[in-house]
Amino acid sequence: MGGRARGVRRGGVGRHLIVEMYECDPLALDSVEAVKTALLDAAVASNSTVIGYEFYRFKPHGISGYVLIAESHISIHTWPELGYAAVDVFTCGEHTDPWKGLDMLKERFKARKMTILEIVRGIGAEDYVGYWSPAGALTGARAVR
Amino acid sequence: MGGRARGVRRGGVGRHLIVEMYECDPLALDSVEAVKTALLDAAVASNSTVIGYEFYRFKPHGISGYVLIAESHISIHTWPELGYAAVDVFTCGEHTDPWKGLDMLKERFKARKMTILEIVRGIGAEDYVGYWSPAGALTGARAVR
Repeated sequence: MGGRARGVRRGGVGRHLIVEMYECDPLALDSVEAVKTALLDAAVASNSTVIGYEFYRFKPHGISGYVLIAESHISIHTWPELGYAAVDVFTCGEHTDPWKGLDMLKERFKARKMTILEIVRGIGAEDYVGYWSPAGALTGARAVR
Repeated sequence: MGGRARGVRRGGVGRHLIVEMYECDPLALDSVEAVKTALLDAAVASNSTVIGYEFYRFKPHGISGYVLIAESHISIHTWPELGYAAVDVFTCGEHTDPWKGLDMLKERFKARKMTILEIVRGIGAEDYVGYWSPAGALTGARAVR
């Protein structure tokens, strides 16, 4: 696995979609296989690179899981008994499109209602004036802060 | 591992803190051990139960990581060269306090500046009128939506 997709620029490091999915298909929300496949496919749809993932099914129902991508993460927590899922699609880099990942998830879970909040992460981070050496060795006295 | 911490109530299923940490200690942001320990300790501080975790270090620098908790998740993506970390602390259930987890992370990363957005997740989810059987068997024709 190589370097991170960064795309640091004025205007933040990435886009984070905070998504409330209501009135979803409860069966899909309670199937580890369906949820896992949906999130992995969403990673591909958003043009992200999968690093790892983990999914867990609660008893008696509900699933939590995430896909760690080189460009940040996609996560989900489902309440099938409420037809509800808390979804986050957070991707960095100009080559990614979190909205395409979200389209995939909406389709798979058959969400009839959604609220979406798009947050640009890392605004102002590029103004950092601290010392940092890419080799990992910080310079001088500033190495100890 | 037992049931999920739910605490479904009017006013959502949980609280999600979207945190921008600026002017952090870049060494801490580039150490897998430091980041992993900080997030696991934050899970404990917020009174959450850890289900799993994964941390990945990019080349030449930067870490992404995730702690899956029974109450949702804590995640981080760091840009040590910018002194910046994108942090999420999302906990469900009345027994948890995401702010205590955040205090821990702020201390460990020595963040000098933060912006925090608190989002109540799942507002209105309790109004769901769909069919759902805890046993997993949906009733009648509604099983196929």
